[in-house]
Formats: sequence, structure tokens, C-alpha cells
Amino acid sequence: MIKINENFLKLQAGYLFPEVGRRVREYRAKNPAAKVISLGIGDVTQPLAGAVIEAMHKAVDEMSKEETFRGYDHGHVGYEFLREAIRENDFKGHGVQIDIDEIFVSDGAKCDTANMQEIFGLDNVVAVTDPVYPVYVDTNVMAGRSGGANANGQYDKIVYMPCTTENDFVPALPDTAVDLIYLCFPNNPTGAVATAEQLKEWVDYAGRNKAVILFDAAYEAFISEPDIPHSIYEIDGAKEVAIEFRSFSKTAGFTGVRCAFAVVPRQLKAYRKDGRAVDVNSLWHRRHSTKFNGASYISQAGAAAVYTREGEKQCRQIIDIYMGNARLIRESLTKLGYEAYGGVNAPYIWMRTPDGVSSWDFFDRLLQKANVVGTPGAGFGPSGEGYFRLTAFGRPADVKEAMERFGSV
Amino acid sequence: MIKINENFLKLQAGYLFPEVGRRVREYRAKNPAAKVISLGIGDVTQPLAGAVIEAMHKAVDEMSKEETFRGYDHGHVGYEFLREAIRENDFKGHGVQIDIDEIFVSDGAKCDTANMQEIFGLDNVVAVTDPVYPVYVDTNVMAGRSGGANANGQYDKIVYMPCTTENDFVPALPDTAVDLIYLCFPNNPTGAVATAEQLKEWVDYAGRNKAVILFDAAYEAFISEPDIPHSIYEIDGAKEVAIEFRSFSKTAGFTGVRCAFAVVPRQLKAYRKDGRAVDVNSLWHRRHSTKFNGASYISQAGAAAVYTREGEKQCRQIIDIYMGNARLIRESLTKLGYEAYGGVNAPYIWMRTPDGVSSWDFFDRLLQKANVVGTPGAGFGPSGEGYFRLTAFGRPADVKEAMERFGSV
Repeated sequence: MIKINENFLKLQAGYLFPEVGRRVREYRAKNPAAKVISLGIGDVTQPLAGAVIEAMHKAVDEMSKEETFRGYDHGHVGYEFLREAIRENDFKGHGVQIDIDEIFVSDGAKCDTANMQEIFGLDNVVAVTDPVYPVYVDTNVMAGRSGGANANGQYDKIVYMPCTTENDFVPALPDTAVDLIYLCFPNNPTGAVATAEQLKEWVDYAGRNKAVILFDAAYEAFISEPDIPHSIYEIDGAKEVAIEFRSFSKTAGFTGVRCAFAVVPRQLKAYRKDGRAVDVNSLWHRRHSTKFNGASYISQAGAAAVYTREGEKQCRQIIDIYMGNARLIRESLTKLGYEAYGGVNAPYIWMRTPDGVSSWDFFDRLLQKANVVGTPGAGFGPSGEGYFRLTAFGRPADVKEAMERFGSV
Repeated sequence: MIKINENFLKLQAGYLFPEVGRRVREYRAKNPAAKVISLGIGDVTQPLAGAVIEAMHKAVDEMSKEETFRGYDHGHVGYEFLREAIRENDFKGHGVQIDIDEIFVSDGAKCDTANMQEIFGLDNVVAVTDPVYPVYVDTNVMAGRSGGANANGQYDKIVYMPCTTENDFVPALPDTAVDLIYLCFPNNPTGAVATAEQLKEWVDYAGRNKAVILFDAAYEAFISEPDIPHSIYEIDGAKEVAIEFRSFSKTAGFTGVRCAFAVVPRQLKAYRKDGRAVDVNSLWHRRHSTKFNGASYISQAGAAAVYTREGEKQCRQIIDIYMGNARLIRESLTKLGYEAYGGVNAPYIWMRTPDGVSSWDFFDRLLQKANVVGTPGAGFGPSGEGYFRLTAFGRPADVKEAMERFGSV
């Protein structure tokens, strides 16, 4: 008799966005004339950079001729032309030496952050921030690293690290030992960043405790202030303890194109039960090449164009559009008397709901009165209650109108 | 202290193709003038169909304009235009009713066959054929459904079902109870197909034992004989017991483009330990949408073009080229006195090595004397010893030359 993986039954029903979608659909059905503006889900709206379009057309053409046709990306880890461009621009340009054998190209950072836990044992203690990107948690629940959920939707055995205004949304070190730590800076959903000093504390903690940090840097391109680290590898000792995730989704509008990468340094070790060290890079290489067959050549060709002079300039212009939105949202909210965070080094604005209104009530109120969709903070964890996420990925005219409506509510 | 997933340590060193690659590189380094022809790895060589190229150019253009730009494939399960085309052409056209909510588009059948096991418990007994596509086995070893490997490279707790000339390479039903059964027809590596009667026996076995069949039909497009089932769902009762995997990789040359799909029927049930039934479709939906973010829009647009009248005709012509190769290989080998199987409904020819030579020795001999690369049968499992796989995916001129060299060895 085929048995299911019963860990799946522990999962709480609501993946956040389906519930948001359901409420929006219901509202639209009742109010067909309403022009609903979504600043909810974190999906981009600007078309791709011209250099990327051109590179993808060229790649498609190559696929039409026998001499230039490309089949499997045989190493499964990404074409050298792309990994070389990544090494040079994303790391060497920031003073970080990464070898191309430490770079694993994939079809998405969601997949990478979801899959990475597979190479680690089930007896590791997982630590996540609260609020948190739900994928980190759900994938560990599925694998069996948690108990059941409590009334707050938090799972037994998983360590939650609150991020609130009190700690500037950067978690304090846990007081119990944890093994696998998920950090995301610039942060989704709070828009917070960690300073080099704050990251150094985490790297040192991981070093002392032989823990591993899974560092999600998907929003790195939105950092605007100097001195904020773009990579955790800018921190001394990080190569011994951290895996970093990057994505072209938000950097270059690739949410529909699909390309990302993970960095797994060769120095990084994990341990057998008997204490003997094992090389994590080769474990991941084995997992990646056994369960994945490489990212689309066309997507990889497009991603490489992001690093050309033209591509870089064009992608920067697109990011500037989004960051213009972010500034407008933050400033409008502040002017209206709301407490608003983020939006300076991240495409997310994390606002406090007014008068202690619950985040789902605020969602409903905003939808009904202003026809604006955001994301209730409680959807990201109990510490998100009383907060609300707005994203800067909308069209500028929509964002402007949304802010005007905010004013009139 | 971060612990590794120690199941990875059970994995046998040699994923087959790296070893093949190593020996070829070594030979080339010593014989730089040799023109080595590879009929080894199963990768396509013909350029994409014109209709696919056109559709992908159009999709790239759509990504360049705000009005037609596509971000996330929000349901994560594939665009409706593609799932509708699949339903209509791959199933309804063969008399099988599949709902589009039973179709999950992905970036590859390797990923799907590798990931599907995650939704099932670790205490299920896995059955695979011998020889076998290594991904089915390795992913179960990684998950922890096996013990260690024996001298043959076979893992404890996994049930191996020999496929040899004696059973026409279609395995007999196991005499012990198994829960999760991997079948692949048309088969890689043997090129064998299963008749409706043979599949019916498996479907009935699974029904009686509440087992699930993972049916890999990646080579379905190569079936040339009438009466050979194209889908396991042509068999009565299969929707209650089987998941089917399909791919555009070999059907339409998408090994570098990446698009595939899995069918998980709504009737399919698996069980909790207490015997209560659980809907497998919704388990997979949860897994797929939590750990995957949709296949590239450009790849999906290209895949949909495979089902247009032009696309279908052009893909058929490409398959005919490969099947011409297959016929040439099979006939040449037979004429030379070799025992050769497959190559009629599959792009693989499975030949017996002459004079009881081991498959790796035959590999070396063929490489050195004829400069032709194939794949040693032993790499697919102990029952593959004494066999050798040749693929029909080469360029016709290369295949012709390879066969001439075979004649002279």
C-alpha cells in the first residue's frame, strides 16, 4: 500500500497568495466596475531590457540551425559564459573571489532555497525569521524537520526569530543552538537590510556553532545606500558558513523567463553524525545534477546579457523605475501619518496598520474603500500582525493613483 | 552542528555519463586527430521546428512590451493555452480524457520523475527495472528509501526487476509487495515497448496492491507500430494507479529549451498510515507550487507550437530523421551478425556485446578501434551487463559513418 509523506498533512492550508487572490476575485465579482490596483504580489511589470530581448532572439535563432543548436546544458550547472559573467560582475566587482565551480545556475531562487535543505539531515534545527518568506518553512515541514503547527501557524521544532521595529527587523542571535539559518537581506517582506556588522555577528555565530546560513540575496540589486553588503561573502569567514541565493527575477524582470543561481563555496563543510566533515559543494553538485537538467539556454543567454554594458544600464533604469515607486509609496504613507519601513534598499514597503487594526482587516478595508491590494503582514508570520506589505513593482501611474486613493481613505 | 543527509553517502560514485566522458576525453587527448562519433548520450542534434522558433521569437517580443509582458506563471502549473493543447492532442486524440487540472507543466521530465517521490512516505518499497534510468534510483537513495549498495551497485531495500531477452525486456510482476513502481516505455535504455496486455497486468497489480506506477513516457513520440499504447491511461483502471511523465525534450528537441509535464489524475489515491485515503493530485499541486515557480513563458510558448499543424508536421519530420538513424543502426548491426533490440518504437538500440565481452570492454574496444562512443549496458544495472546502448539522435551522416566503421571492426 502506497503511503503518503504525512509531513504534508502538517502544512497549514493557506499559502498566503491564494487567499489574497480569492478575496480580490470575490470583490471584483461583486464590483465589476472597480479598477483594482495591485501592490500585492511581488511580480514585475516592466518589459525586459533591450539587450536581454536581443540576446534571447539570437539564442532562439541559434536553436534553428544545426551548427549552433544547443541541447542539454551538459554539466547541469549553467553555461560557463554565464557563470563567468556572474563571477566577474556580481562578486569580483564587489571584492569577492568566487570560483565558477561554486556557482550553480538554476531556473529560480525559489527552487534553490526550497531544494537546498535536501542535502542536510532531518535532525538539524531550522531557524527562520518571523515574518518569513513561507517557502523556507513549508519545504522544511514537507521534509520532516518540524512538528505540527500551533494556533499562530508556527511549527513545533522550528525556531522563529522575531523581526520587529524594536530590532530594526534584523533578528537577534538565537539563545538555543540552531543548525540551518535562513536569512534574507534586503528582506522580503520588511524591506530591511543588514549592515556588515550585523551580518558579521551571524557569520561568527555560524562559525562558533558549525551552523550553515542560507542567505537569500534575491533583492540585492535594489540596495541604494553605500556600505550595505551586497553579498554575504563580503563578510570575513562567510565562505566557511554560508550559501548565497541570487536571482534574475527582480534584478532583470525574469519572473517569466526563469534564471537564478546559488553559490556554494568550496570551503563550506557539513558533518556526518560521527563528526567527520563533508564537502557541501559536492553534495549540492550531486543533488543538482541528479534532480535537475539545467536552465533553458535561451534564459541563460538572456541572463548573460544583463552583464553587458547596455544590459546593465537598461536593467538599472528599470530598477530605478521601481525604486521611484518605492520612494513615492514610502513618502506618501509617511505624509499621511503612517509608520512605513523599507523601500530604500528594497522594493518592499512594510507599513504599520493604523489604530491597531489587524492586517487582514486592513487588507479588506483597503480593497473595499480604495480598491488597492496589498499583502497582510500576518500572512508572513505572527510578528507580521499589525503590518502590511506594499510592493514597488507596479506601473508608476498605478502606484501614483493608488497613493492618491490611500490619501482619500 | 549542521548534519548532512547521510543518505547521499550511500550513492555510488559513478553517475554513468561522467565516466563515459572521462574515457572519451582521455582517448581524444591521446589521439587528437581521431574523429570520434558519439552515439552515446541521449541528446538531440537536429535544430528546432520552424513553428517552435517562430513562436519563441513571438514570445520574446511579447516580453519587450509592457502590454504583453508576462511575469510569473501564477498558478505554477503551466499556462492554460499549453495544458489545453496537451489535453486535446496528447490525450483526447488517443481516446483518453484528461482534465487540464491534472496536467502540471514543468521544466523537465528528469525533474518530475526525480521530485515525484517526495510526496510519498519513506517507508514505501520502491521497484525499478534492471537496467534502469539511474535518476529513479538515485533520488530514492537520497530520500532514504534504500540501504547501502552491494558489489553490483544495487541498493538494499529497492526491488530490481530484471529485463532481459527472456522477457522481451518487460519485467514480470514482482513476487513481493511493492508500493512505488517506476516503468518507462518506450524504454530507455532497451528501446523495448509494452503492449496493452502487459501494461494491463501492471495496472491490475497496482490496483490489487494499492501501489502507484510512475510511468515515464518521454519517448512516446517514437512509437511507430500500431496497437502500442502511447499513454498508460489507454489502459482501463490506470487513472486510479498511475502518474505519467511526458517531455518535449525528445519529441520536439527541447533538451536545451526545457519543458515537460506530468499527469496526476484526480482519481489517484495514496494512504495515511491509518489507511485513510489522500488525494495525490492536491499533494503534488502543493509540492509543485511550493518548490517550483513555473516553466519559462518562452519555453511554454514554444511547446504549444508543437501542437499546431505546422509544428506537428515539422516535429514529425525530425523524429523521422532519428528513426531513420535507428533503422540504419539496427539493420547494420543485424547484418553484421550482432543481436540488436529496440530502435523500432524508440530512439535507442540495445545490442548484445559479441563473444560475451563485458560492456565496458566493448566500450573501450569500440572507442579505440572505430572511434565510436556508445553507452555500456552495465552502467544501467547488472542486467545491462553484456549489452550496449546506441542512440539514434546523431546526425544522419555521422550515424552512417559510425555504422561503416562498425563493419570494419
